[in-house]
Amino acid sequence: MTKEEMTALLQDHIPLCHFMQMECAFIDRAAIRTQAPIEPNKNMHDTGFAGSLYALAVATGWGLVHNRITLAGIVGQLVVKEATIHYKRPVTSDITLQAELDEKLQDKDIENQLNTEKRATFPIIVSICCNGKKCGYLEANYVVVRR
Amino acid sequence: MTKEEMTALLQDHIPLCHFMQMECAFIDRAAIRTQAPIEPNKNMHDTGFAGSLYALAVATGWGLVHNRITLAGIVGQLVVKEATIHYKRPVTSDITLQAELDEKLQDKDIENQLNTEKRATFPIIVSICCNGKKCGYLEANYVVVRR
Repeated sequence: MTKEEMTALLQDHIPLCHFMQMECAFIDRAAIRTQAPIEPNKNMHDTGFAGSLYALAVATGWGLVHNRITLAGIVGQLVVKEATIHYKRPVTSDITLQAELDEKLQDKDIENQLNTEKRATFPIIVSICCNGKKCGYLEANYVVVRR
Repeated sequence: MTKEEMTALLQDHIPLCHFMQMECAFIDRAAIRTQAPIEPNKNMHDTGFAGSLYALAVATGWGLVHNRITLAGIVGQLVVKEATIHYKRPVTSDITLQAELDEKLQDKDIENQLNTEKRATFPIIVSICCNGKKCGYLEANYVVVRR
């Protein structure tokens, strides 16, 4: 999937991602980078709204895992079961987010987990940055089950 | 603050709350109930988008604590430091959220904490429901510091 396809997938199918003007700036099998302007995502103090930062982060992690399982040829349902977000400093300008998967993860590892445990789990950490500084991060646990 | 004033505060100052059509249905010194339609808050499966559910929940907890400290006469900065959300079942229709504070909490307890610790903390649990069933909950830690 190209970055343009990921942007379209998010914006065309999730109204909130369209409103947040979320875009995918980079994606490959092991990493994703996304971005959004501060304007639709601010609070009354003109800094990043906690809810927007979470929504951007959880969609970023979702995009990374969705692309990875698609590349592995798995048709599954992907959900997030629980997630914890940490806010470290105010977000004062346009937002960039990034997440990675273990480069060594093989398709057969995912298949094996699906076959033995009926689900594959992807614990992901998404960094939330602005002005080149890390402002917080999301720890989210994504789960894939076969359809 | 009335429920109409809380709705205006959220919708007029946080663009995402306006887009989510978030409304306050009830508020007093110890409780809040909010609601939003599923339409702007859905994902590609036509169920509640994880990011919307979090954003609605974190704004609900914020509204409760904001109103409580305002009633206590405290002019402070209110932020959320970290939060964990648990998704238990899909949200398939319009969303209602609610949260409570300890009824016994006195203004002087908040003042005492601000004076001795320079901050007052409010650990809040926000329930996320649809069709009368609990679909998940947010545990968020709000912190107030004096301006």
